[in-house]
Amino acid sequence: MAKALLDRLGVTYRSIDVGIDREAAEKMVALSGQYGVPVITVGSEVIIGFDAPRIEEIFGKERAGVTVDILIAGAGPAGLTAAVYAARKMMQTVVISENIGGQALESWSIENYMGYRLVTGDDLMKKFEDQVRSQNVRLELDRVDEVRREGDRFQVRTAAGGEFSARAVILAQGKRPRLLGVPGEDTFLGRGFSLCSTCDGPLFRDKIVAVVGGGNSALQTAIEMSRIAREVHLVVRSTIRADDVYVQQIKERRNVTIHSPAVVTGLFGSSVLERVAVENRETGTAVELRVDGVFAEIGWIPNTAFIKGLIPLNDSGEIIVDENCCTAVPGIFSAGDVTSVTGKQIIIAAGEGAKAALSAHEYLLRNPS
Amino acid sequence: MAKALLDRLGVTYRSIDVGIDREAAEKMVALSGQYGVPVITVGSEVIIGFDAPRIEEIFGKERAGVTVDILIAGAGPAGLTAAVYAARKMMQTVVISENIGGQALESWSIENYMGYRLVTGDDLMKKFEDQVRSQNVRLELDRVDEVRREGDRFQVRTAAGGEFSARAVILAQGKRPRLLGVPGEDTFLGRGFSLCSTCDGPLFRDKIVAVVGGGNSALQTAIEMSRIAREVHLVVRSTIRADDVYVQQIKERRNVTIHSPAVVTGLFGSSVLERVAVENRETGTAVELRVDGVFAEIGWIPNTAFIKGLIPLNDSGEIIVDENCCTAVPGIFSAGDVTSVTGKQIIIAAGEGAKAALSAHEYLLRNPS
Repeated sequence: MAKALLDRLGVTYRSIDVGIDREAAEKMVALSGQYGVPVITVGSEVIIGFDAPRIEEIFGKERAGVTVDILIAGAGPAGLTAAVYAARKMMQTVVISENIGGQALESWSIENYMGYRLVTGDDLMKKFEDQVRSQNVRLELDRVDEVRREGDRFQVRTAAGGEFSARAVILAQGKRPRLLGVPGEDTFLGRGFSLCSTCDGPLFRDKIVAVVGGGNSALQTAIEMSRIAREVHLVVRSTIRADDVYVQQIKERRNVTIHSPAVVTGLFGSSVLERVAVENRETGTAVELRVDGVFAEIGWIPNTAFIKGLIPLNDSGEIIVDENCCTAVPGIFSAGDVTSVTGKQIIIAAGEGAKAALSAHEYLLRNPS
Repeated sequence: MAKALLDRLGVTYRSIDVGIDREAAEKMVALSGQYGVPVITVGSEVIIGFDAPRIEEIFGKERAGVTVDILIAGAGPAGLTAAVYAARKMMQTVVISENIGGQALESWSIENYMGYRLVTGDDLMKKFEDQVRSQNVRLELDRVDEVRREGDRFQVRTAAGGEFSARAVILAQGKRPRLLGVPGEDTFLGRGFSLCSTCDGPLFRDKIVAVVGGGNSALQTAIEMSRIAREVHLVVRSTIRADDVYVQQIKERRNVTIHSPAVVTGLFGSSVLERVAVENRETGTAVELRVDGVFAEIGWIPNTAFIKGLIPLNDSGEIIVDENCCTAVPGIFSAGDVTSVTGKQIIIAAGEGAKAALSAHEYLLRNPS
């Protein structure tokens, strides 16, 4: 997103991937005093994270209202599929997303996407992206921050200050990881505490990490980190609830220690995370483990903050949709993990994306501008 | 289905593919006086079509009640995906279907199945089938003829006399082609009049055929037949409503004549179809075209005859489902083209199949036997 904004503002820059360049990674941590990406240096100023307002203060604003038929928020399996279907119906389509692939990028071994016996999330999302790019679709690395109705149109504002006017909106912005809710979590987020093993994992080569959670995601992360880090602690609240294939693998990893039934009660350190407190829920015994990183893999929260009040949500905060991906608001459709559909799967999200686009197309035919 | 039944009855037989062996095809037509497959000869007896009762009269019955967790009716994209998801949840799963691939087999050029820029229905369904066969799933070439509730179980009877007892049922039996509703249709079905160009198309090499319809399916069939047959008439009721890519191609085919706006008013011939009556809807002019085959591609009817009274259907006769593929009857789930979901697409059917299996799994967990 930062690179896309800099591009649009016409700023030239040098980009360093700290996931590959270990020396640069250490320099980045030293310079910024934290582990999160991106870190942008402008002269002597260090900007931590994607701070669009600060970038715009320095380099000036880009603000051109764009009018489209269908605006799609999110570019995971649902958003990308919706884009292909919308474009094939000759609708002017823009997709706005912080990344391309969404949560699917986190899966390194997918066996239940029909058509592929085994594929990584990365590879599959690359194929989805290629399919979108073969169509007439505008793909913006940015984030939708506001959607409001004005007459028969929807006005959309993005994190990077973009303004769009759309005849129909497809909400496919997915969900984000649930937090632990313990002391130190805010302090050490980006300073050792991570919610994205794919993003931050490579920074912990030969370090000690803990993974919190007992589901498929947690086990996948633990297995992945056991190949990168020196030592992995898996903290499981009750019992492991994951596919046998992962349970089997985790048992075979010699550098993984399972703490169960146990909870994390706090994150500690000086400038960066150094220790995690783990309490056994049966015995009450508390230990402090020496760690460099902690990955939380304990569930998800739908990304619905920017549409509160606009659309009815269910008790889990998910957008309520009918079987054709219509929401309660005419002109707004929704698909994928952000919706009330129970199954959170790539094949399901893709199908829902197609439905949302076809429903949006039908809506536009019935409501010509 | 016939081969599967003969296999189960332990009958050895010789199978000839009349789509490949032209000489055998001519012999079959001469012997049976019709164009439909299968034709089975037992001694001097000629059995036309899949006549399970007659086959059982000759070779004896197979009747062993089988108990499963989940019975899936249909093996199109929805049924096959449901099977993979059900099996991965360790549910004892049986799939019953007349064919593997369903209506998807009819598509020879799919550009909107995410993950593949271009794939044939045949190839994609082969991949789906392989994925199912890699799981512990029983796949029966047969047809569900009856589903009835008995206590907390569903009793299922098949066309070949099979009996199953299932704790949950997923209905994914799709839809079938709509008929023309004109004189001669019944008489010449299988004697020149066809509802399945993929099945019967190869029999019309160097012949003259008509294709009825103006949508994507009709144009796809006309394009396909223009490569096989000598001459193709395309009879379009009003105007062509298909993707540009097909409209473009149809215009480039020299041996395709478009009749529009026109309707078929009758099929004529002696023992086989010889002529089709076509009336121009603007001028009222009627012509009789000399044809060997007519393919109807004018829409679809959901395959719901065997569940009438069991489950609420909508005005189009489709099974009403909610956003998680639940029907009004606990324990019965539904997915794919047979449901009230508007979009009839492979990616949608696949997603719905996954949802139905996950909902069925949840239902079984909540209702242990």
